[in-house]
Amino acid sequence: MVSFEDIAAAHERIKPQAKRTPVLTSATIDALTGAKVHFKCENLQRMGAFKFRGAYNALSQLSAEEKRRGVVAFSSGNHAQAVALAGRLLGIPATIVMPIDAPKVKVDATRGYGAEIVLYQKNQNREDLAKQISAERGLSVIPPFDHPHIVAGQGTAAKELIEDAGPLDLLLVPCGGGGLLSGCAIAAKHLSPQCRVMGVEPEGGNDATQSFVQKRLVTIAAPDTIADGARTPSLGKLTFPIVMRYVDDMLTVNDTELARTMFWIWERMKLVVEPTGALAATALLQQKVKAEGLKVGVILSGGNVDLRWAAAQVIKQQDH
Amino acid sequence: MVSFEDIAAAHERIKPQAKRTPVLTSATIDALTGAKVHFKCENLQRMGAFKFRGAYNALSQLSAEEKRRGVVAFSSGNHAQAVALAGRLLGIPATIVMPIDAPKVKVDATRGYGAEIVLYQKNQNREDLAKQISAERGLSVIPPFDHPHIVAGQGTAAKELIEDAGPLDLLLVPCGGGGLLSGCAIAAKHLSPQCRVMGVEPEGGNDATQSFVQKRLVTIAAPDTIADGARTPSLGKLTFPIVMRYVDDMLTVNDTELARTMFWIWERMKLVVEPTGALAATALLQQKVKAEGLKVGVILSGGNVDLRWAAAQVIKQQDH
Repeated sequence: MVSFEDIAAAHERIKPQAKRTPVLTSATIDALTGAKVHFKCENLQRMGAFKFRGAYNALSQLSAEEKRRGVVAFSSGNHAQAVALAGRLLGIPATIVMPIDAPKVKVDATRGYGAEIVLYQKNQNREDLAKQISAERGLSVIPPFDHPHIVAGQGTAAKELIEDAGPLDLLLVPCGGGGLLSGCAIAAKHLSPQCRVMGVEPEGGNDATQSFVQKRLVTIAAPDTIADGARTPSLGKLTFPIVMRYVDDMLTVNDTELARTMFWIWERMKLVVEPTGALAATALLQQKVKAEGLKVGVILSGGNVDLRWAAAQVIKQQDH
Repeated sequence: MVSFEDIAAAHERIKPQAKRTPVLTSATIDALTGAKVHFKCENLQRMGAFKFRGAYNALSQLSAEEKRRGVVAFSSGNHAQAVALAGRLLGIPATIVMPIDAPKVKVDATRGYGAEIVLYQKNQNREDLAKQISAERGLSVIPPFDHPHIVAGQGTAAKELIEDAGPLDLLLVPCGGGGLLSGCAIAAKHLSPQCRVMGVEPEGGNDATQSFVQKRLVTIAAPDTIADGARTPSLGKLTFPIVMRYVDDMLTVNDTELARTMFWIWERMKLVVEPTGALAATALLQQKVKAEGLKVGVILSGGNVDLRWAAAQVIKQQDH
C-alpha cells in the first residue's frame, strides 16, 4: 500500500519543480451551498493538471541506469504531457505512445516538452505494444495511476490543500483510475482524520462507483463521457483496495450537469477547468452531497481543454 | 494628488473584504519572453475585477449621513458591480445607472448584488442624469476612476504584487480611464523605485497614449475596441497628471493581438481574462516591449466576459 510517509517524501521530492497551487474561495459559492468551500486549483499546476505530481515523483525515483535508458508511457491525455515534462526536467528521455487519432493539440504539446511520440493504430493492443517497446528499448513503463509512486505523488495535492486551508469536514475528489482519489484519501485521513472523503465519477464511466458498492473490482466495457480523464474501464489493482479502505463514498454526475458546472466555473470563478477537472465541483454545486455548515475541500484537477471544442459546447448549450 | 500613504491606508480599509489575489508564474511564458514574469490575478478578485478595491475604499470613507442616503454610479461594466457589491457589504443603498442596451447578464449581476438599476435611453446625457439623480435623492456619486479614493484603492493591487513578488524591473498595467494605472504607478515607484511602469491601451482607444505623447489631456471621439473597459474617451483631471508624473511609457495593442493573447491565456494559463484584462499581457507576449532578462509584473485586471460572446470569437478565429 501507500502510507502518508510516502506522500510526505514525495512532497519533498517534487517541491522544487511542482507548483504549490493556490487554494481559492468564493463568497458566491459559499452563499449558494451554505458551506465554506476551498478549491485546490490543480488546473494551475504545471502542464495544466495534478498528473505532474505523480509523474515527477515516479521518474525521480528511477535508478541512474533506468534514467539513462528512458521511460515510456501510454496516454493521449494529461499523463502523456506529465511524463514528457518530468522527463525533460530530469533529463530522462521519454517516449509517449498515443493513438493515431489523438488530438493534434495534445500530440504537439507532448512533443513540445521534448518527448518522442509513437502513434499506434486503433486495432493494435496497447498493452502488447507497451511490453514490446519497453522490452526492445529497455524503457521503464510509467503507468498512469496504478503505481505506488504515482499514488503518493498525487496525494500531495490534498496534503497541500489541508496544510493551507486547515482540517476539513469533507473532501471531494474526481475519480478516473483512482490515482488522485486514493492518494488524496490517504493524505486527508492522516492530516484531518474526521474528514469524509468522496470520489466523484461521470455516470458514463461509473466503474469505481460500481466497484465501491459491490466491493469487487468491476470493469466496464466502453466508458462514454465528456470527462475524458475518467474514461478508465476500472480502478487499478493498487488503487481499488485503497479506495475501499480510505474513501467514504462515491458519487456520480451526468454529462449535462458536468458541462453546465464546468462553464459556470469558467464564468464565475474565472478558472478554465476541463470536464474531468470539474467532476468534484459538480457534485457540490449540483447538490449531490449535503455540504451545509461544513468546511469542504474540492479538487479542481485539471484545465487542459481544447478551446474550439469548448466554444462549440457553449453554443450548443445556448441553442437548447 | 494621491500618495503612497493613501494607498497603504486604503489597503488596511479594504483588507477585511477584498481578496489578496494570487500572483502566478508560468515557466512557458518565462521561456517565451526570457523574463521572470509575475501575473497579479485581479480576474480572481471579488466580482471578477480590481474595481472592487477602489469602490470599497471610496464607499467606506463616506460619512455616516452619506452612507445612510446612499450612492449612485454610472456604468455598464465592472464599476457597476463593484459599487453594488461594496454597497451591499457596507450596508449602503446603491443605485446604478446603466444604458438601456447594457448586456442582460451585467444588469442581472449588478441587481444580484442588491443594487437598484436605473436604465437610460441612448439619447440621454449621462452627466446630466447623474447630477439630477444625485440631487433629487441626495446620493453621493461614485466616479469610476477620477477620484483620489478610487485611485488609492486600485493602487493596492500593485502594492500586493510587489510585496509578494519582490521589487520589479518593469510593471505593465492596462489603461482605460487611468485609475488602475495611476494608483499602481504610485505604489510601484514607492516600493520599487527602479521599476519602469508602462500603461497599455487598445489601439482603438488610444487617448491616454496620445495624451502622454502630446503632454496634454486628449479626448477622442468614439473609442472602438473589444476592450470594453478601455472605451474611455480620455484620462481624468486627476489621473492625467499622475500618469504624466509616474508612468514611464504608454503602449498600444490592436484587437487582433488582444483577442489572440486573451485566448492564449485561457488555454495555457487556465485563467479566464476579459479583453481589457489581457491588455498588459498582450504587450508582453506580442513583444511590444523589451523584457528579456527583466523581472516583470503584469496586471491581469479582470475576467468578466460573456462566455457566449467568447465562444463566437473563438469560432471566428478558427474560421480565419
